[in-house]
Amino acid sequence: MVDYIGTARLRELISRVGSGRFIEELSGEIEADYRRWDDFEKSPRHAIHSSGGVIELMPTSDGRLYSFKYVNGHPKNTAKHLLTVTAFGLLADVGTGYPLLLSEMTFVTALRTAAISALAARRMARPATRVMALIGNGAQSEFQAIAFHRLVGVRNLRLYDTDPQATSKLMRNLESLQLPGLEVTRCASTADAVRGADVVTTATADKRNAIILTPQMIEPGMHLNAVGGDCPGKTELHPEILRAQDVRIVVEFEPQARIEGEIQQLGAVDELGAVRTVTELADVVRGRLPGRANDREVTLFDSVGFALNDFSSLRYLRRLNAEQPDGGQCIDLIPELDDPKDLFAGLSPEHAQERAKLRRRRFA
Amino acid sequence: MVDYIGTARLRELISRVGSGRFIEELSGEIEADYRRWDDFEKSPRHAIHSSGGVIELMPTSDGRLYSFKYVNGHPKNTAKHLLTVTAFGLLADVGTGYPLLLSEMTFVTALRTAAISALAARRMARPATRVMALIGNGAQSEFQAIAFHRLVGVRNLRLYDTDPQATSKLMRNLESLQLPGLEVTRCASTADAVRGADVVTTATADKRNAIILTPQMIEPGMHLNAVGGDCPGKTELHPEILRAQDVRIVVEFEPQARIEGEIQQLGAVDELGAVRTVTELADVVRGRLPGRANDREVTLFDSVGFALNDFSSLRYLRRLNAEQPDGGQCIDLIPELDDPKDLFAGLSPEHAQERAKLRRRRFA
Repeated sequence: MVDYIGTARLRELISRVGSGRFIEELSGEIEADYRRWDDFEKSPRHAIHSSGGVIELMPTSDGRLYSFKYVNGHPKNTAKHLLTVTAFGLLADVGTGYPLLLSEMTFVTALRTAAISALAARRMARPATRVMALIGNGAQSEFQAIAFHRLVGVRNLRLYDTDPQATSKLMRNLESLQLPGLEVTRCASTADAVRGADVVTTATADKRNAIILTPQMIEPGMHLNAVGGDCPGKTELHPEILRAQDVRIVVEFEPQARIEGEIQQLGAVDELGAVRTVTELADVVRGRLPGRANDREVTLFDSVGFALNDFSSLRYLRRLNAEQPDGGQCIDLIPELDDPKDLFAGLSPEHAQERAKLRRRRFA
Repeated sequence: MVDYIGTARLRELISRVGSGRFIEELSGEIEADYRRWDDFEKSPRHAIHSSGGVIELMPTSDGRLYSFKYVNGHPKNTAKHLLTVTAFGLLADVGTGYPLLLSEMTFVTALRTAAISALAARRMARPATRVMALIGNGAQSEFQAIAFHRLVGVRNLRLYDTDPQATSKLMRNLESLQLPGLEVTRCASTADAVRGADVVTTATADKRNAIILTPQMIEPGMHLNAVGGDCPGKTELHPEILRAQDVRIVVEFEPQARIEGEIQQLGAVDELGAVRTVTELADVVRGRLPGRANDREVTLFDSVGFALNDFSSLRYLRRLNAEQPDGGQCIDLIPELDDPKDLFAGLSPEHAQERAKLRRRRFA
């Protein structure tokens, strides 16, 4: 039997733990895994693109556990009253190849994206960070707000979205959360929101090379948390911001970021034939390279979402789920046979051991 | 909600349809998809190897449906009283990226492997095929026997395994199936089993370069159905059999077969600098190339298992499952939200629409 966390169970877990604590604990798990970066087998994700969007598989392993996530991105889904991003993931035992946990990851992806944004900002934003501009007030925005309030110390949130209803939705949700000391302001434009901010988070959803931030908006000492640009042809920053040699760029996994991140806009080399160097987050987390040199440096976390973030999430979920008094649910995804050498006999109904077990378990 | 076929449900479906008819219908589905080979996005599978085995992801898409399979191969699992191969798969809608069906595929992989073996043999074995040697009497063997009896006309089965208990298990299972007109003989050696056979099926499990068949065993007109060699370092045929220029070699997907199939033993070019050409099954199915030239030619189907075989299986399963009067089961793998633009609000328990639906459905 394989542990199963559906959307109903995830809601239960979040309502018990609270989304803030969930993001904080998850951030710790992700950080611990980035500290042992070299333990992981890493590859860019497998993507199949179509006119409507993309379907991706994101596998990784540390030699003991294996995980992958299925995730899609379909910007036009909202017109069909559907989510633009859905996801689920699996954790497996490398020693036997057996699946351990199947989990919903639509919600978890949003939570873990905010967790790694805050993790990076703690090392890259100025120590006295209080003000964050949040550009793009869609599905990811509440999670970013919670994470930066709890983990980075943001107390002043400046919101902008081309769709005023998105901002209203975000304000309504933040209102209900009652985050201590958080002041929320609706702004008239991106430039208005960004002015004077310590951190600028861009989390827009258009699948195109958009220009959300221009060089004129960037002030000394700002930290840019670029979340929305995450696949080929989908970016948010003016390329001049990336080309400026005094901007420190940090990415999760360089080979993938070069394909999917903001830095896809940079050629392999610049006009002078030089490679634009970027730093991997793992080197910042391990203290090998600084996240910021001084208070006037502009820093950019060019986040696209890497398989390791999901690996940490699934391992955390498995533990959290098992720690609950009710223990959670299971599904019969894998046969359990009296004689594993006799697969054929295990196919006949009288060998349905898992079914009996399933009946004994609570489901939903 | 996502349709779900667990092991219990798959047993139900098989007991209603019968494994023979299931394999026959599935073989038809696979053939129909190989006829439109060019519609599919194809890539070698993604594999993560460890000392104990391998975990693989096998994705493909025809632009309307997307599928992937998770499958492991851990030869030492039997010592732990576990299956050496477990699998599950997902079918999704390319237009929205939404998952449609999650299914067990441990049993289904065995069924579909036999289905494609028989599909190839119908085009490659001699028309009057009656005798099959079956070397390796493990998990795959019953399915091969059923498929070749039903679809290829095999009436005389000659069995050999280094483990006599495996052969006893196969004979016991075949006995209970009572396949009309099938005569089953236990043989003393591979050479004994192979002598005089029309078809030789090798389905052994050792993860190494084994030599199950040697050039001396091969007789004019034989069709070799090599099932067991399916990953790097795991082969069953003496390389001289592959090098013989008068053996016709058919594979599923050449780039993957060159990595994982028997033909991994061939260099890119031979001593004379010539490339050993192989034929893709799709070209045989579409009538572009013959499966066999004459009754004396030796033919080899070097099967490793391609993502398309699983795509066809999942689509077939989805239809079969939905056609049943009881309609099957669902799981809450993906959120269903009142307002898909408000992911955060959908995380609170009062928005748990799927849970209510789940309670209304029969589970197990």
